[in-house]
Amino acid sequence: MNEFKIFVLVLGLGMCNASSPGPLIFATKGAVWPKPQQHNTSDSFFILRPRIFKFNILKNISSSCNFLENSLARYWKLLQFDVTLKKYQQKNKKSEQVDGLMYLEYLDVNLTGQCDDQAFPGIKMDESYRLWLLPNRKELQAASIWGILRGLETFSHLVYKSDNGQSLRLNATMIKDFPRYKHRGLLIDTSRHFIPLDKIFLTLDAMSYNKMNVLHWHIVDDQSFPYVSTKFPELSDKGAYNRYTKVYFPEDIRDVIEYARLRGIRVLPEFDSPGHTSSWGLSHPEILTSCEILNIYGPMDPSKEDTFTFLNQLFSDVRDSFKDDFFHLGGDEVDFLCWKADPNITEFMKMQHINSYEDLESYYVQRVVDMVAKLNFKSIVWEEVFENDVKLPNDTLVHVWKMNWNDTIKKVTASGKYALLSSCWYLDKLESGGDWRDFYLCDPTDFDGVPAQQELVLGGEACMWGETVNEYNIISRVWPRACTTAEKLWSANLGKHDLIEPAQRLEEHTCRMNRRGIGAQPPNGAGYCD
Amino acid sequence: MNEFKIFVLVLGLGMCNASSPGPLIFATKGAVWPKPQQHNTSDSFFILRPRIFKFNILKNISSSCNFLENSLARYWKLLQFDVTLKKYQQKNKKSEQVDGLMYLEYLDVNLTGQCDDQAFPGIKMDESYRLWLLPNRKELQAASIWGILRGLETFSHLVYKSDNGQSLRLNATMIKDFPRYKHRGLLIDTSRHFIPLDKIFLTLDAMSYNKMNVLHWHIVDDQSFPYVSTKFPELSDKGAYNRYTKVYFPEDIRDVIEYARLRGIRVLPEFDSPGHTSSWGLSHPEILTSCEILNIYGPMDPSKEDTFTFLNQLFSDVRDSFKDDFFHLGGDEVDFLCWKADPNITEFMKMQHINSYEDLESYYVQRVVDMVAKLNFKSIVWEEVFENDVKLPNDTLVHVWKMNWNDTIKKVTASGKYALLSSCWYLDKLESGGDWRDFYLCDPTDFDGVPAQQELVLGGEACMWGETVNEYNIISRVWPRACTTAEKLWSANLGKHDLIEPAQRLEEHTCRMNRRGIGAQPPNGAGYCD
Repeated sequence: MNEFKIFVLVLGLGMCNASSPGPLIFATKGAVWPKPQQHNTSDSFFILRPRIFKFNILKNISSSCNFLENSLARYWKLLQFDVTLKKYQQKNKKSEQVDGLMYLEYLDVNLTGQCDDQAFPGIKMDESYRLWLLPNRKELQAASIWGILRGLETFSHLVYKSDNGQSLRLNATMIKDFPRYKHRGLLIDTSRHFIPLDKIFLTLDAMSYNKMNVLHWHIVDDQSFPYVSTKFPELSDKGAYNRYTKVYFPEDIRDVIEYARLRGIRVLPEFDSPGHTSSWGLSHPEILTSCEILNIYGPMDPSKEDTFTFLNQLFSDVRDSFKDDFFHLGGDEVDFLCWKADPNITEFMKMQHINSYEDLESYYVQRVVDMVAKLNFKSIVWEEVFENDVKLPNDTLVHVWKMNWNDTIKKVTASGKYALLSSCWYLDKLESGGDWRDFYLCDPTDFDGVPAQQELVLGGEACMWGETVNEYNIISRVWPRACTTAEKLWSANLGKHDLIEPAQRLEEHTCRMNRRGIGAQPPNGAGYCD
Repeated sequence: MNEFKIFVLVLGLGMCNASSPGPLIFATKGAVWPKPQQHNTSDSFFILRPRIFKFNILKNISSSCNFLENSLARYWKLLQFDVTLKKYQQKNKKSEQVDGLMYLEYLDVNLTGQCDDQAFPGIKMDESYRLWLLPNRKELQAASIWGILRGLETFSHLVYKSDNGQSLRLNATMIKDFPRYKHRGLLIDTSRHFIPLDKIFLTLDAMSYNKMNVLHWHIVDDQSFPYVSTKFPELSDKGAYNRYTKVYFPEDIRDVIEYARLRGIRVLPEFDSPGHTSSWGLSHPEILTSCEILNIYGPMDPSKEDTFTFLNQLFSDVRDSFKDDFFHLGGDEVDFLCWKADPNITEFMKMQHINSYEDLESYYVQRVVDMVAKLNFKSIVWEEVFENDVKLPNDTLVHVWKMNWNDTIKKVTASGKYALLSSCWYLDKLESGGDWRDFYLCDPTDFDGVPAQQELVLGGEACMWGETVNEYNIISRVWPRACTTAEKLWSANLGKHDLIEPAQRLEEHTCRMNRRGIGAQPPNGAGYCD
């Protein structure tokens, strides 16, 4: 009495009949998500005794490296996922090779570059690494801690349970890996629903399991203002859903940034303006257009100098809180109705010889871009800002989110601007099941542009807008669907029309995430995790 | 950068502009879900001091009634949701009415009928109750424990926090309430994904918060067989996803039934056949059609007498486990291809003068219906069984699930059969957000039938098929969407086209469920819970 079968057949996923016993898609064993760029593997395998196994730091870095040691400790714990395998837990006193079995007793960790315990991830970080699991070489090598982190993640994916469930194995492997795109993000929206810190930490965990490296924190919007500003505490006192329990204090933000940093994830703040700012008006109505005809607060009022003074102070505060090089200015969906109705704004436009509301928006954004540049932020803006011909510094990123993205990205890159893609990765668009396939078929290179234009695409983001998710369903709605975006942005060599191979890996990867505490929903259809 | 606004405007939910600060839909305070049949209320209110409040059993029942006492203890706990209100916790030594405030210090609980501690809920149970919260009468009255349970649930919904958050209140109220339909169910499917017991208990909790009274347990299917049969343990040994961890032992089933019973919920087992039985074939291939052309197991083989002998033993086992009067036989989606390809079946049909595969299916279902009747089960079947003209006892329920349900239910009831409706309440069909509205617009009376036919509709079920849900998202995907079905089946007096009033109540009810540990997703859009 359900129509799931039909759905599966339409997708041509004939690999196992939907009415056969067992799962719809059989999981891989020890496959990596996202797929490495070069991965040679063989059927011969090592046995991992997780309690005995250790990471061995090769001593070519001058002093101790806490960042590295903490990372190794975390990944060592992730390997302890089946400690019921008692007979493999004890150190075998004999040689490494017993009864034809090879034990993986250690992995050499070779950080060839400098260690900086305070390093922050950035757009230019080097995430490449190499991994050898061979009888004569068991080594993870990377020039930076970021590469080590990505390599450890890969290493942890290689471990799988033997068919009889009696041992953990890793196939002999050589991997050379690096990201296809530098910006691989997930947007969360904490304005439409407040998301408590524990779920943000869990989200960062899951991102690291997918080698995503930017948490785009759309922290405030029309509905609520949970950001506690040191300079303007009244913004959250009046604008948050609850001024005590549904806010992010400076120390919360510090914790999120640090938790993310240790996982090689940047935290990109967005304070969207001049639209999407109603909640600001609960404490600071003077900076918004008084829009009496609609009985609402309109967008920011660009005719007042005080507006920019206020923004400058607020954004200085944001600069103090957030460590990333970039600031997302928003700039989308500005409704001109309120500006049109305001005589002061009409007057201002006359004085300034601003002839259209698009130009007024440009004036506003231009000033904000310049303002944050002085605060040492580079800007990211939603595509409308580009379309309205705002003069933007060349290092501005244009974030493409609307349909018909192929044309937009072509225009953006033709103008020499950098681009980020989100149009095809909106997680609030949801089908019954298996809809990661739609996301998977989207590729950022699918636009008509010369190689120099292709190089201006820095990556993209999956977007989880907050209307449909609260703390209870955000994890299961984002995961494993956002894994698709993570893989498309990391892996260059994906078969374009093969959806069975990724379906099998995603089945395993979802179970891996479940095992690690990420309550991801089923990726494909009927199934189970060991 | 999202299109949620448009969605809201299209639905005409103009109550608050999507870009206003605050939630999209403002929650009610102390409104009941599902809506009572008669509810008179006033602005004057009582204050509840939850620690002091007590239920007072009126002593017109002969001996002590554990069932009642346990129910009161459970609901007393549910009232303790904000014990931070210290100043209202201590017994006020003065009169009941202080400073113009009325305290609700007790509720008289008046069970006018007999108490039976071992009573099982059934299709004929009396769930009606009356509730008075007046200065001179504070009483819940019902003829049966089932009515008391429903009334306690209603009572618990009336409690709300005052605007200043300093007290819990209940408005003065008179309610006369009873269900519109007798069968108000939720289907869960534990074959496509195994659902652990804790999530089944949580599901039963949530059902009781919505006055649903039938857990339709679609326990086995093609994909896996988690039911541990005492007579045929090999069925789950070979057919479960994991014979140790992904099975329901007899004591588990007993626990579920008891947990449900105490909440007035029937547990209706479904063992779907003759199709949807591949997993049975992993241990008992002999009862299935050997379908070599497709290299799969086909449906049950009705040509062998052994098939029926086996089923009779298995269903005796089911009779021992499940206490309900009804048994859901399934009977849907039988694929005739394998029967056609089997020469033994062709031979059998000739011998028996069975001329079509529909007739062969009828032969099979007829025998199973007779078999379970002897086991003292009444049958429920999916609509295909009715459409294939199987001769069914008059007390059989026909479960309508396909599109065009209005015609089907008309035919079913015209033939004098009882009907259940699920067509419009398939929870695996999912939109971005707010799709409870689609479910809400569906009404079981919307078919062309005389009053006698309308009376044959006994209710319906929301269906949560298991392909898209595992233990991590089943709760948030079912709730609050299934609340819609619960209300449509309980409440007769709903405004047909008013979606704002239920949206406001559902906003409160979702927060109420969240507070009680049910991780329901957002019902409407941006919002928050106190």
